[in-house]
This record gives sequence, C-alpha cells and structure tokens, in this order.
Amino acid sequence: MFRRTAVAFQKQVKRVPYANMLRDPSSKYKRFQGISLPDRTWPNNKLDKAPRWLATDLRDGNQSLPDPMSVEQKKEYFHKLIEIGLKEIEVAFPSASQTDFDFTRYAVTHAPDDVSIQVLVQSREHLIRRTIDSLKDAKKAIVHTYMATSDLFRNVVFGMSRQDQLKMAVKTAKFVRSLTKDDPSKNMTHWSYEFSPECFSSTPTEYAVEICKAVKDAWEPSKENPIIFNLPATIEMSTPNVYADQIEYFSRHIGDRDHVVISLHSHNDRGCGVAATELALLAGGDRVEGCLFGNGERTGNVDLVTLALNLYTSGVNPNLDFSDMKSIIDVVERCNKIPVHPRAPYGGSLVTCAFSGSHQDAIKKGFAAQEKRRQNGDQTWQIPYLTLDPKDIGRNYEAVIRVNSQSGKGGAAWIVQRNLGLDLPKAMQIDFSSVVQNNADHLGRELKAEEIISLLQRHYNVDNCATDDLNVKDYNFDKKSDKVTDVNAIVRLNGKEIALHGKGNGPISSFLNGLSDAFGVKMEVESYAEHSVGQGSTTKAATYVKISCGDKYKWGIGMHESITRASVNSIISAVNSLIKAGALDANKVSSSEHALRKFAQKKVSANL
Amino acid sequence: MFRRTAVAFQKQVKRVPYANMLRDPSSKYKRFQGISLPDRTWPNNKLDKAPRWLATDLRDGNQSLPDPMSVEQKKEYFHKLIEIGLKEIEVAFPSASQTDFDFTRYAVTHAPDDVSIQVLVQSREHLIRRTIDSLKDAKKAIVHTYMATSDLFRNVVFGMSRQDQLKMAVKTAKFVRSLTKDDPSKNMTHWSYEFSPECFSSTPTEYAVEICKAVKDAWEPSKENPIIFNLPATIEMSTPNVYADQIEYFSRHIGDRDHVVISLHSHNDRGCGVAATELALLAGGDRVEGCLFGNGERTGNVDLVTLALNLYTSGVNPNLDFSDMKSIIDVVERCNKIPVHPRAPYGGSLVTCAFSGSHQDAIKKGFAAQEKRRQNGDQTWQIPYLTLDPKDIGRNYEAVIRVNSQSGKGGAAWIVQRNLGLDLPKAMQIDFSSVVQNNADHLGRELKAEEIISLLQRHYNVDNCATDDLNVKDYNFDKKSDKVTDVNAIVRLNGKEIALHGKGNGPISSFLNGLSDAFGVKMEVESYAEHSVGQGSTTKAATYVKISCGDKYKWGIGMHESITRASVNSIISAVNSLIKAGALDANKVSSSEHALRKFAQKKVSANL
Repeated sequence: MFRRTAVAFQKQVKRVPYANMLRDPSSKYKRFQGISLPDRTWPNNKLDKAPRWLATDLRDGNQSLPDPMSVEQKKEYFHKLIEIGLKEIEVAFPSASQTDFDFTRYAVTHAPDDVSIQVLVQSREHLIRRTIDSLKDAKKAIVHTYMATSDLFRNVVFGMSRQDQLKMAVKTAKFVRSLTKDDPSKNMTHWSYEFSPECFSSTPTEYAVEICKAVKDAWEPSKENPIIFNLPATIEMSTPNVYADQIEYFSRHIGDRDHVVISLHSHNDRGCGVAATELALLAGGDRVEGCLFGNGERTGNVDLVTLALNLYTSGVNPNLDFSDMKSIIDVVERCNKIPVHPRAPYGGSLVTCAFSGSHQDAIKKGFAAQEKRRQNGDQTWQIPYLTLDPKDIGRNYEAVIRVNSQSGKGGAAWIVQRNLGLDLPKAMQIDFSSVVQNNADHLGRELKAEEIISLLQRHYNVDNCATDDLNVKDYNFDKKSDKVTDVNAIVRLNGKEIALHGKGNGPISSFLNGLSDAFGVKMEVESYAEHSVGQGSTTKAATYVKISCGDKYKWGIGMHESITRASVNSIISAVNSLIKAGALDANKVSSSEHALRKFAQKKVSANL
Repeated sequence: MFRRTAVAFQKQVKRVPYANMLRDPSSKYKRFQGISLPDRTWPNNKLDKAPRWLATDLRDGNQSLPDPMSVEQKKEYFHKLIEIGLKEIEVAFPSASQTDFDFTRYAVTHAPDDVSIQVLVQSREHLIRRTIDSLKDAKKAIVHTYMATSDLFRNVVFGMSRQDQLKMAVKTAKFVRSLTKDDPSKNMTHWSYEFSPECFSSTPTEYAVEICKAVKDAWEPSKENPIIFNLPATIEMSTPNVYADQIEYFSRHIGDRDHVVISLHSHNDRGCGVAATELALLAGGDRVEGCLFGNGERTGNVDLVTLALNLYTSGVNPNLDFSDMKSIIDVVERCNKIPVHPRAPYGGSLVTCAFSGSHQDAIKKGFAAQEKRRQNGDQTWQIPYLTLDPKDIGRNYEAVIRVNSQSGKGGAAWIVQRNLGLDLPKAMQIDFSSVVQNNADHLGRELKAEEIISLLQRHYNVDNCATDDLNVKDYNFDKKSDKVTDVNAIVRLNGKEIALHGKGNGPISSFLNGLSDAFGVKMEVESYAEHSVGQGSTTKAATYVKISCGDKYKWGIGMHESITRASVNSIISAVNSLIKAGALDANKVSSSEHALRKFAQKKVSANL
C-alpha cells in the first residue's frame, strides 16, 4: 500500500541476535554534555511573536531527495513558497552546478521586491565570486557561508585547528563584504550575510561564540542591517532543552545583540526538531530555517507548517498562510516525491479525524456548546480533540468524524445529522450504531459517509423505498374529537392491497391500531419524536417511532413535507422491520370490513 | 505514488481568500496558561535510565485506524510487542465488544508470566465487572480507569461538578479494589490499578493532584505495589516544557511518592510528543505509554521507537530491542495499514542515507577515523551525520551513501569502494563524479549502486570488456637495466592485430611509448596510483593511470592478479577513452617492424 520511494532501502543484514541490543550500549554511545546554564531563563518565557522564517526546501530539502526536483518543479515550489508568505528563501548552491546557478538567476529575476534570495557557498574565493555573480541585480540577497566548527568535523573531516578556522572565517566574511556591501557598483541590492558554525549543537558553545564574534567584527553589522548567525542543530544531540540552553548562552555572550539575528536550523534526528526550535525561540532565537512538512537530510529539517500553525493556534499570527493546505500538500508531494504522513501535525489526512465513539461524542457536544457561545459573542475555538478549526486550513467538518468498528453511537449519528439533517433520538442512535458496527466489523474497514447513509436508508426503509415491502397507497384521517381519530387506509404488501380501519387518540395510534387489526397482533408505540429539517419552502418533518410487538421492537423513520404523512411513513418503516424480524407474519393479513365499505362508499382523496 | 489510506480525506471547501489566515488569529485562539513553576529543577536533569514502557498499540492505536486490525493481526502484533521486550501491554476495552473481550482472553492466556495485561474501562459498575471477568487467571493485570477532568470536558461533555467527579473516582477505585486485590479468590493475579485524569495537560494541575490523591487513598497502594497515575497530554496544549512543569508539580505534590508511578501519555498535536515525554521524564515521570512509530488518534501517540533509541544512542539501555527493525516495520505497516514515514527517526527508509556530496565525504572520513580509533581500543561510535550505527537496527552501511545529481565526488567513490574495493585517486573521483552527475541529471533520479558500478565499468572500460575496443593479446617485457625496459606486444583494434615495440624506464612508460609510436601521436602518463584489493589468494592489483594526449587527458583503471598486467590494462582503458574522445585516430595505426620481427623470431609466451 505504500510504494517505497527508494529501492536500495533496508537491505537487511543477517538477523542480529535478540540479546545484542539489550547489551549495554554505553560502551558504544555516550550521552552528550551540553553547556551548563543553571540560571537559564527561557523556561519562564512564552512564544508571543512570529520569528523570521527562511524556507530551505529548494536547497537543504532538495539535496536530500532521492529524486531531486526538476527545474520546472523548483519553479513551481518557489512560487508556492512566495504565495504562502515566505520572505526569505534559500534557493540553491549556485557555485555547485550550472543548473543551480541558472535557478538562482530565475529566483532573483522572479522574486517580489520584499523577498530575500539566500544562497549557500563554501569558504573559497572562486566559488564566492561565482555565487555573487548569480545574485546580480537582486533586490534583497543573503550570502550564506558555513564552517564545520564541531570537534568531530573539524578534526576528522577538515583536519583544521580552531585558530586556522577562525582566520579563514574572518577572511571569508571580509571577502564577501568586499564583493557586496562594500562594492558601490552593487548598491542596488540589499546585502545580508549569514554565517553558520556548522553542527553548532555539537560545537563547544564558547567556541561558537568566539568564531561568530570574530565574523561579526569582520562584517560590521548594524542595527538596520544585522548579521545572521545561523546555529544549526545539524544533528540533534540531546533533549531539546539542551539546545535551548546553548542558544540562551550564545544570545547572552555574542555581544551587540541588536546587530545580530539568531537563526535556528534544527534537524529531527531525535524526533524533537519542532520542540528544539520552539524552546530555542524562548531562549532568544529570532529566525527559523526549515522546510514544509519537515523535508530534509535524513529525518528532515524542522517542519515550518507545524511551527507556524502551533503559533497560530496559540493566538499568534505566524505571518504564513496555510489556509489552502490542500494545494500546498499537492505541490510538496509532487515535487519532493515524498508523501506527507497521514499523522503529520495539521496537514496529515488523519489529523482531524475521530474514529473512537467517545471522541466523536465529545466533539459533537463541543460543537453544540461552541454554537451557544458564539451566539453570546464568544468566538473562541474550544472543541475537544481539535486544536485547530479545520476550516482554517481549508478543510471541512465532514472529515472530522469517521466511523469504523471501534466507533460508538456518536459517529454514525453525526454523519446522519450532517448529511440528512436527521437528529436521531439517543436510543435510536444506539440501535443504529450496532447496525453500523456489525457492518464495519464484517467489512473489516472504515465506512464512508455515503455507506453509512445508505445503511440507514436500507435498514430503516426510509421513504419506504422497497416496493415489495409494506407501503401505503391511500389514507384518510377523520378527527372525531380531541381524543379520538379514525383512519381508513389502503396499504400494499407483496403486491396485495389491504384496507385498514383504526381508532386512536391521534393519527399515529389510529394507524397503528389499524395495522394491528390487519395483522391480528397487538403493536404499541414505545417512543416517538419529531423535528423539522431545513428551512422555508423546503422544510420537511422527520419522525422517529419505536414500535413493539410482543417482546420485539423496532425503530422507524419517516420524512415528508406533511407531518402526518411523515408519521405514517415512520410507522410503515418500523412495521416493515418487525415483519423482517419475524414478529409479524406477512401472509396472515386481512382487510377490515369497515374500511372496505368506506372505500366502496366513496373514493377517498389521495393524500399522496 | 502514495495511495491515500482514506477516501474521505481532504474534501476541500471553497478556497479561503489569502488574507483570511493572515488575519489576527488571537480572537479565535488563546495561548494555554500552564502552572507557574519558576523553581523547576527538571532542566538540570539528564535522562539516565529507561522508564517502564506500556504499548497501547492494540487499544489507543487500534481505535484510531481507519481500518482497525483483524483479530489475527492483533495476535501477530501482540507477539511482536513481546518479542521487542514490552512488559506492559494495553490490549483492549474488553467491555466494549465481544471481540475485545475475546482478545483480552487470548492475551491473558498467551502472555509470558512477566508481562502485564492492561485493559481500559469506564467508571461504570457493570462494565467493570465484565472487564475483571476478561482478566480471569491473569498472572499480572492492570485495570485502567479514566475520568475527563479538564474543564472543557467536564463541563461540555459530562456536565459534572468537580465534587461529583471526585466522589465517582473514589467509588470506582474502591469498587475495582473489591473485585480484585481485596478478593481472596483472585489472588493468583498480581493486580495493579491505573487512573488517568484525562486531558491532564489541560486540567488545572492542582485539581489533577486533588483527585489523584483521593483515588490513592481509596486504593491504598504500597511501595511494592504502587498505583499508576497516568497523566495524558491527550491534546498537546503548549510547548513541551509546560507539560514538564505540570509533571514536576504533580510529582512534588501527590504525596507518598514511592507508592506512586507517574505515567506519561503524550499525543503529538504540536509535533512535540517525543520532546514532551522526554522533558517530563526529566521532571519525574517513571513510565511511558505510547505506540510503535507513533500510531494513535489524530497525530498519534508518542513514538516508542524514537524514545527508546534516543536513550540507546545516549548510552542508556532502553530494555527494548529494535535490532530487527525490518521485521518490526513489516508487522506495523501490515497491521496498521499506515506506512512508516521515510523520514521517521531511526526507522525511516531515508534516515541513514546521505545524498549530498559534503555529507558523504564527511561520513567516509568518519568511518576511516573510527577504524583507527577502534584499532586503538576505542569502541565509541562517532560518525558525522549518523547518530546510530545502522547495524544496531539490522541495516548495513550500503544504504548509507546514495547518489543523485546533488551528490559530489564522495558518494560515487564510496559506492565504488564498498562494492569493488577500488579506492579511486581524488582527481579521478572528480572525473567520475561528473560522469555520475550527468547521468543522474539526465535520468532525473537517484542512481542505484549497481548503476553506478556499471557506469564506472562502461566508462573506463574496466577489464577491457568491449571486444571491438583496443585490447591486448600478448606482450613480453624485457628489463634491460634498472632504468630501461623494452616491450614487444600484440594488441587488437577493430579486429586488426598490431605489433608494438616500446622502450621506457618501466613497463608502463615502455608500453605507452609503444602505443604512441603505433598511433603516431605522443601520449604521456600524468598520474599513476596502485593498491591491492582483497587479501590472500584472491588479492588483485588495482591500477589507475591518467594519460594525456595533446590537450586531452583520460583516466584508466586496470585490475589483475599480476601487477604488470593491471598496469597494462589501465593504459588500455585510458587509451580507449582517448580514442572515443577523438584524441587518437583508430584508423591510423601501424605495427612496429621491430616487434613484427621479434614475434616472427620466436613465439612469445602468453601472459594472459
């Protein structure tokens, strides 16, 4: 059911014996030691404003795809990011290939004036030159350089001392400066500089501060044009509070704090990318780099959708627009060729669904209570199990309640209410839910809304649609007094016409008494309810009746513009079920002599 | 490429205008206010031991599936959980249906003695009776009751005062007690009691403590048989530190702390389920309820795989065994009918993959450095970008490095090294990577390992496999002095045999000089390297040579048991490429008179 996107995946090696993993892993893995910050203040803070956002879907995201985007896909994605409201977009590594260079040119020439184009480049002069060339005539551009400052990377990958690295970082900043903001011929572009001490999360924090301070001095940022220090959790090293401590430490020690933008760039190796980013925002982060739905290397970059909508549902405007979630998912899935998981926060297909009966019941009650609050002017969204109004991301409530064999009465009843406007009495909901449960159990899967509705219509013979069943051809009520109503009627059963005569204290009891006489068995109304459906000229009456016959009982539903006819229909509906249940014998029906005479005397007017 | 598991998903409503979402959401959504705990201590703590784990895949997980598990699937899943090492498993809601009751009986009769079977039940006497019946003769059983204590649920869903609810919770605990641990006829079972103040995360924390204290007094737990208070983040309400504060507050105020097990049960609405659980463990949590790969209502329950392997990679034994990840994923995907996302931490198919050149290069160097450390007795796992040794979850390294058009030289070189044992010289890696990049760009997708290898073999004509190309039939080296070697050889080209004679300071230069004379064009060796491949009797020599001709140059590879022959092969490989590049004319080749005479004089011995 899920075609793997990659073939080489999961070649399995010989089964490792069970005991292997239970063996103490502490000889192989060490717990990460973060900076000590016992006087941290971030846990007392609240998220109260949106950060600056940068989308790196086209760079960090794209480089991690088994099948990278085509140029056409990159363009489509780029425009979707702008539509969502992204003002900073990392588009490529322009010095790496002609394709990347060309796409940067496309982005530069197609970006709105308020959108910054960001590009990544290594600390090498010829690559930097080529990169700056790719940004020619941009309105706003961010040149992003990086250096792997963690001990592991510095020693193993680059074999470079801290001192050499620091010198190189300073030299690079000065070189970029000379080609950008210090070059008067390029002053139509607003140039920003971003420096990433790579694997910041595993870099000794004091050293990260040291190298960034040196870069800051080299670039000479201002309050109006601050330098961006992007502090990646390239690899998640520990629980997310440890990253937050690192960010708070950095924020306290970097100096010229208002000349500096602290940018967060979390990956998700420990499944805590969103949390690490949020806690780091509490700790002083100003800006977030990530991808839609958390695409990116390995476990992905942090998910911008979740971060933005987490703010949104806390009453903070994220300045990003996910109101058309469906089209965003369409673009992301088509370009990345990686599906959005059904349980991805906010965007996942199963996120606004409730299958369990108790959940469905709570949601139903929540909507009713909210409706009341709204009428009193309170617009607050407070629905059990739903943190977000599905409408805010372009979904509707129909998808919320879904029914499988684990669902209680609430779910099916909700669907019937939303689709047919029928508000089943509680006892009837229980009756119907067992019908639904048996059916779902039998099929071994979820039932769709249309299946549930069709089940209701067939089971209760709503509108007496089955012609072989009992149905009514003609009837005439005669109200003798407030307490006595007479009925004469003709019904059909198995192609045979039967004349009924009944007396009762109203139409329902008289009609049922007429049927009781015809079948020669006593039937009684145990429960009755009715309400209107719709408004104005299309209003109908819906009638529910529970009829017993000996130790058996059945529910019936009737709907009609005429209340009387709706009542008659509900009786017919219930009696048909009693026939099917064997409580009544369809072969032992006889006409009333009285009724036959009445119909012979005068043609009753058709009420049909 | 990804068939949706559910059909009703994402019926789209009319496109909400762009401005809608940018509208201030604060009139609709309010930020959650947690408990104030400025003297919290949890941020100073470290995760240093495994919690107790409960898997609720068969209950909370199953009830959230569009297509719930069949009985056979539940059985398979149950046994897989036991195999992983779960000692507490919530199996059903036995009073809800006969199916659930029957499955509970199955679990009770099939569980090992040290595995506790947990079941959920509402606070109703007849349902509790039925539930206890389902646990008959269990070795270890946990009866789990709950009550929705958050204001929203209490008011809107249940319409119950705090006082009434507290009384009911106490009554329920006493009733369960009378049927279990106070009933001498049932003393073959070790009975535990779990109480969940539902939506603990949105319940006023003082009230959660109050109701749990009352339940504790009613149950009278002991140090040996503590009561379990399960504190669900049924809905994630805020950043995960807020949940941790709530847990620390609860832990400090519940009293008789060593008679109480604090159980965590996070969902993932804000994408922070793992983080909330980890921070709450720092704050005093003892036990975790969750599902494999985070299945469960909406965004899912917290993911047990990630939590356990986060501990594992921090050097803490999680007491759960994920060494056979593939078979676990197989069972989970088959039973849940929901795929594990390619980027799911640890288990996802793309998690141990690196496509980007710089990442691949770093990983390669990391493995080399680690090998050295190992030889010095240091077993620590420290590889850039890989938090976990893929072998620990039954995967191998082949899957780590994968190559697409965004990959640099490192990736393809790694695959060649892993598969053929060829350690290409750095300059040749660059040469080959452009071949690979062009091919990946052309195909618009990732290249598989076998494609890369085949590309290498074809491009460099390794082993001179194409018969129409230049290949060697016979040769004889004659070492005249330390500085002079003579060669006479016969090569074939386009079906024609050519006799060569050459002189040089060694076999390579003499052979190449012979070819230069035959083609009438000067060729020179620009670079040369060789190394052995394999060990013992299967050892081969691998030879790399860069040959220039005018302003063109080409690389060649040769492999053979004989070093000399490997060198000859590498020359043939490079010269073939020069022919294809048009640097040499295959039609203008002439034999050496000297060589023809030599071969006429005596039959040279075949070296082939």
